[in-house]
Amino acid sequence: MNKVLIIMGSDSDWPVMKKAVQVLKDFKVEFELHVASAHRTTAEALKLAQEAAERGFDVIIAGAGAAAHLPGVLAAVTPLPVIGVPLNATALQGVDALYAIVQMPSGVPVASMGIDGAKNAALFAVQILGVKDTSLREAFKNYKAEMAKEVAVKNEKIGRLVEEMEG
Amino acid sequence: MNKVLIIMGSDSDWPVMKKAVQVLKDFKVEFELHVASAHRTTAEALKLAQEAAERGFDVIIAGAGAAAHLPGVLAAVTPLPVIGVPLNATALQGVDALYAIVQMPSGVPVASMGIDGAKNAALFAVQILGVKDTSLREAFKNYKAEMAKEVAVKNEKIGRLVEEMEG
Amino acid sequence: MNKVLIIMGSDSDWPVMKKAVQVLKDFKVEFELHVASAHRTTAEALKLAQEAAERGFDVIIAGAGAAAHLPGVLAAVTPLPVIGVPLNATALQGVDALYAIVQMPSGVPVASMGIDGAKNAALFAVQILGVKDTSLREAFKNYKAEMAKEVAVKNEKIGRLVEEMEG
Amino acid sequence: MNKVLIIMGSDSDWPVMKKAVQVLKDFKVEFELHVASAHRTTAEALKLAQEAAERGFDVIIAGAGAAAHLPGVLAAVTPLPVIGVPLNATALQGVDALYAIVQMPSGVPVASMGIDGAKNAALFAVQILGVKDTSLREAFKNYKAEMAKEVAVKNEKIGRLVEEMEG
Amino acid sequence: MNKVLIIMGSDSDWPVMKKAVQVLKDFKVEFELHVASAHRTTAEALKLAQEAAERGFDVIIAGAGAAAHLPGVLAAVTPLPVIGVPLNATALQGVDALYAIVQMPSGVPVASMGIDGAKNAALFAVQILGVKDTSLREAFKNYKAEMAKEVAVKNEKIGRLVEEMEG
Amino acid sequence: MNKVLIIMGSDSDWPVMKKAVQVLKDFKVEFELHVASAHRTTAEALKLAQEAAERGFDVIIAGAGAAAHLPGVLAAVTPLPVIGVPLNATALQGVDALYAIVQMPSGVPVASMGIDGAKNAALFAVQILGVKDTSLREAFKNYKAEMAKEVAVKNEKIGRLVEEMEG
Amino acid sequence: MNKVLIIMGSDSDWPVMKKAVQVLKDFKVEFELHVASAHRTTAEALKLAQEAAERGFDVIIAGAGAAAHLPGVLAAVTPLPVIGVPLNATALQGVDALYAIVQMPSGVPVASMGIDGAKNAALFAVQILGVKDTSLREAFKNYKAEMAKEVAVKNEKIGRLVEEMEG
Amino acid sequence: MNKVLIIMGSDSDWPVMKKAVQVLKDFKVEFELHVASAHRTTAEALKLAQEAAERGFDVIIAGAGAAAHLPGVLAAVTPLPVIGVPLNATALQGVDALYAIVQMPSGVPVASMGIDGAKNAALFAVQILGVKDTSLREAFKNYKAEMAKEVAVKNEKIGRLVEEMEG
Repeated sequence: MNKVLIIMGSDSDWPVMKKAVQVLKDFKVEFELHVASAHRTTAEALKLAQEAAERGFDVIIAGAGAAAHLPGVLAAVTPLPVIGVPLNATALQGVDALYAIVQMPSGVPVASMGIDGAKNAALFAVQILGVKDTSLREAFKNYKAEMAKEVAVKNEKIGRLVEEMEG
Repeated sequence: MNKVLIIMGSDSDWPVMKKAVQVLKDFKVEFELHVASAHRTTAEALKLAQEAAERGFDVIIAGAGAAAHLPGVLAAVTPLPVIGVPLNATALQGVDALYAIVQMPSGVPVASMGIDGAKNAALFAVQILGVKDTSLREAFKNYKAEMAKEVAVKNEKIGRLVEEMEG
Repeated sequence: MNKVLIIMGSDSDWPVMKKAVQVLKDFKVEFELHVASAHRTTAEALKLAQEAAERGFDVIIAGAGAAAHLPGVLAAVTPLPVIGVPLNATALQGVDALYAIVQMPSGVPVASMGIDGAKNAALFAVQILGVKDTSLREAFKNYKAEMAKEVAVKNEKIGRLVEEMEG
Repeated sequence: MNKVLIIMGSDSDWPVMKKAVQVLKDFKVEFELHVASAHRTTAEALKLAQEAAERGFDVIIAGAGAAAHLPGVLAAVTPLPVIGVPLNATALQGVDALYAIVQMPSGVPVASMGIDGAKNAALFAVQILGVKDTSLREAFKNYKAEMAKEVAVKNEKIGRLVEEMEG
Repeated sequence: MNKVLIIMGSDSDWPVMKKAVQVLKDFKVEFELHVASAHRTTAEALKLAQEAAERGFDVIIAGAGAAAHLPGVLAAVTPLPVIGVPLNATALQGVDALYAIVQMPSGVPVASMGIDGAKNAALFAVQILGVKDTSLREAFKNYKAEMAKEVAVKNEKIGRLVEEMEG
Repeated sequence: MNKVLIIMGSDSDWPVMKKAVQVLKDFKVEFELHVASAHRTTAEALKLAQEAAERGFDVIIAGAGAAAHLPGVLAAVTPLPVIGVPLNATALQGVDALYAIVQMPSGVPVASMGIDGAKNAALFAVQILGVKDTSLREAFKNYKAEMAKEVAVKNEKIGRLVEEMEG
Repeated sequence: MNKVLIIMGSDSDWPVMKKAVQVLKDFKVEFELHVASAHRTTAEALKLAQEAAERGFDVIIAGAGAAAHLPGVLAAVTPLPVIGVPLNATALQGVDALYAIVQMPSGVPVASMGIDGAKNAALFAVQILGVKDTSLREAFKNYKAEMAKEVAVKNEKIGRLVEEMEG
Repeated sequence: MNKVLIIMGSDSDWPVMKKAVQVLKDFKVEFELHVASAHRTTAEALKLAQEAAERGFDVIIAGAGAAAHLPGVLAAVTPLPVIGVPLNATALQGVDALYAIVQMPSGVPVASMGIDGAKNAALFAVQILGVKDTSLREAFKNYKAEMAKEVAVKNEKIGRLVEEMEG
């Protein structure tokens, strides 16, 4: 069984983070999602991370904005790989969250996705799980093939738009 | 008794953070200093903050570089005011630490000093302690008066340099 | 009696700064609020800060945008701790105000909150006052406990949203 | 057998990237290292990534500076998880490489480490491998425990320095 | 025959990139436009660039946002000059794409236009083609002369607005 | 007679630059306004600056966005003081224009105002003219006094809003 | 008599600010230089600015680093034009000082030079004084002519270096 | 005959710009190099650009630091393609020059290279000239092939270093 633990720092992160949920559902990857804050419910957040390995989770995805400490704090107390999603939630437009997630000190890595990159976080979790589950790796290959087909469709669509232009 | 708890994330922070120590010694403020990391020794760091109020501390100063989570994580588990010192420790020259310290979410404030502003952190701690200890407030006023005198001395020194210039 | 002096540089800062007012009202902390500008009414602003300690204030909160000199100028002439709130008021989206507030020179600290962090400024003032007033410290602990409960409620709400998703 | 493929864009990246090599050696993880450039030897770089899964690699680590396209280009042609290390190699001090690595479009994730974070890249690879190899997960736990002990030693060292200070 | 190959990474880039198309139509420069992604359809994108010279193209224009690898990857496999258009497509407002396009390593240049500078990309392609086609150079001179006339018209328009102002 | 020459690079700059016009009208300072571009009508722009001193102008105000070369180019060919107004006209939100205006090389100064600071540009022109015209200096003093009165009015208005708040 | 008042926030600013002194000496412009801090000797700094006009000064030059409030605070209390020099004095390499100087609010302009642009500050003061003193304007024209000659000399020097290169 | 005109704003730009000279010598491309400043010798700089096409030049390369107006000003008065090289010459480390070069307004493109990218500027000029000169295009292909070989050599060198490491 592949299991992903998703934690987000605030319910206001849901519109972005639900994209990760959708990807995991599409890939039939089991997951749990919690709202838990590094600053408002520190004990709960730590407990989730500390017990994650024992409870059978393989990967943790953590989304947070502003001074986004959640992914790093979870990474501090688990041996599982932690994927961080910096959220665009302040006047600094996600640069604050990106720096707070990606610039982790030596010894405690967090894998940062791009700003608001929740979808990619789930896809990266799938790639990690593919290390032990070849059916997921195959599913990911199929996903990439589908993406390529979509680009071909878009290419044709734009080709028609070009023809319609005057001049 | 006024007491300040200083925590720094790494021993490499010492050349900057010792300026805070010197200020507290100069003002005869009692303090404890610990190296404790939000990421490498999370439990120890949290314990220091959780017990700080009961152990009679009034203020916490925390210095950290890179993805500087330490001040925010300490603030999460203590009712004491936490002063954060963002350290210039990476290629981003302290901007990462500044954003990770100052952009705390609503409900869990950290008071950020400037980059490498360890001296000011200690002075601000003295100002906070001055809220209950009028002798410290007086000492701080004297400190400001001394600073002003030093500026006057520098003014004279530069005046002489101007005169020595040709033209 | 605990007293906080709030000064903001412009009446246009009110939509953000009133969050500080609301917090102080909720904590039953006495305060005065003034519009006074470091640049347009320098004398008035300085007078407020110079007399603040004698008039019984314990802490000053100052909010300003753009070249946000107000907190630093007030800090220059008072021994009280000054909390600065950088406001998002220009094309630079608060980075100008943040740097102008947080990068104070050695000897004259200002405690910076995050951009538009007026609510946290008031909470930090409450934490400072808690150094001498144990009932406020208790009130702050209760506030933190309430926040944690709200996160639990949000956690349940999002849990239901996850279940409602297809896939 | 756990295998990591390390690719770096230039031999000038070696002083940083060798830290990743050292970590993998310490954890007894098999690896191959290649110098291959997304821009100068595109075909070779692509071939390495395209064949990596078949050749039994589980994870790819790619370090690059400036317009750091290497990790993203490798990720484009492999189902394996790709870890990117943005290198401080230009006047922009690694911000260019960070943005070029972390801001990957939806569908093709790269896991970014901090600037010059080669050591963390290898540790994160170990964490990924730990998903299928419990002995590596145990080794990683031991690594974290060792780090915590080192902090304790540093704490004592700094404690002595504090005592030696005057005042 | 002058020929320009335009490639854009996503159909969402069309509203900006069509400005390049319009310029080429106005200058009667033959072109082909493709949607092809460095990350989603790498092989197709590379093939377009690898065959471009043989197929008689003189210049390539590539527009991309986020971690904008497309122009650099195309430049890697063609001897033709490649003009890159960084697109404002993320929370970083085009700075990510600009850095990913302009900071190319030694040996593989990409000519960057400004953020969303698709129109200038086409004009620069016309200037390049003018190196071998004097009629295009003349057409470009006329274009500049027309621009100057438009400024004169605008000057008069604003002159009237000034007169209408009170005071 | 005091005379100010205002040049703006594009008619799209008018909504911001008209604030400068209004100030000059309020202070009864004679001015001319032209739309002239450093890049589209270089000769016209240079001619305006080259003849400005002879035609009796005392100061030049130049507003421009993006790669804002206009103020610097004008400064290159006139002995008059040039005031630059960086305009927020691109995805970089005025930072591009600010750097392009303020970072002039040694020997050719331009006085930069803040982003979109057209009003301040005109006020600074008035201050410059006050160096030779004491009546303008007096008018500027009155302007400052009026500003201070407005702050006092705003202070009262906000005071009432505070009273109306609950809690 | 033309008079310039130079104020710098710290004696550590002297190595940069002396370039302004040298220019004024070269142009035979009378000046006074003071070390006075907006934060450490606020009253002295304000007094200098408040009395400057009466004492016959025409222009004020103020240099400051970090949260560079000095130019803005002086501008607040004088009708004279104030030229600000942002100094590279912190980890933020002068961006903090630049923003704190240039982003002044409406009504209180400061003319910002580039980072460490002390020489240009003095030249701009000369240009301002040239508004009332035609001999200074002539001197400035001569200065520009000399600069142009120096470029011609450099052009020849580099021409020789090109010839000496192999290939 | 292929001819490139190189203009640099200051002789201090030579250590970087000579890399462009070396490339052109290696490719046997005729060139002229001038020191001419947009601000100090505006007329000379403009004259060079205005006459460049008539004098048989095909491409202009312009290097400049700080408020780098030179490439844009040259582009304003020539129909030739202009390649800009932003130089790292100030505390802003080339970001000022990059923005001042790349963010050109619609209608007047400049092709920006990376910061200090003089070598790439010359290579891009060679690519442009290759549009009309097939022998140069062949030479450029050979250059790319040589680069690829060098990477292979470096790959072997690093391979040996890996083997020499302990562990």
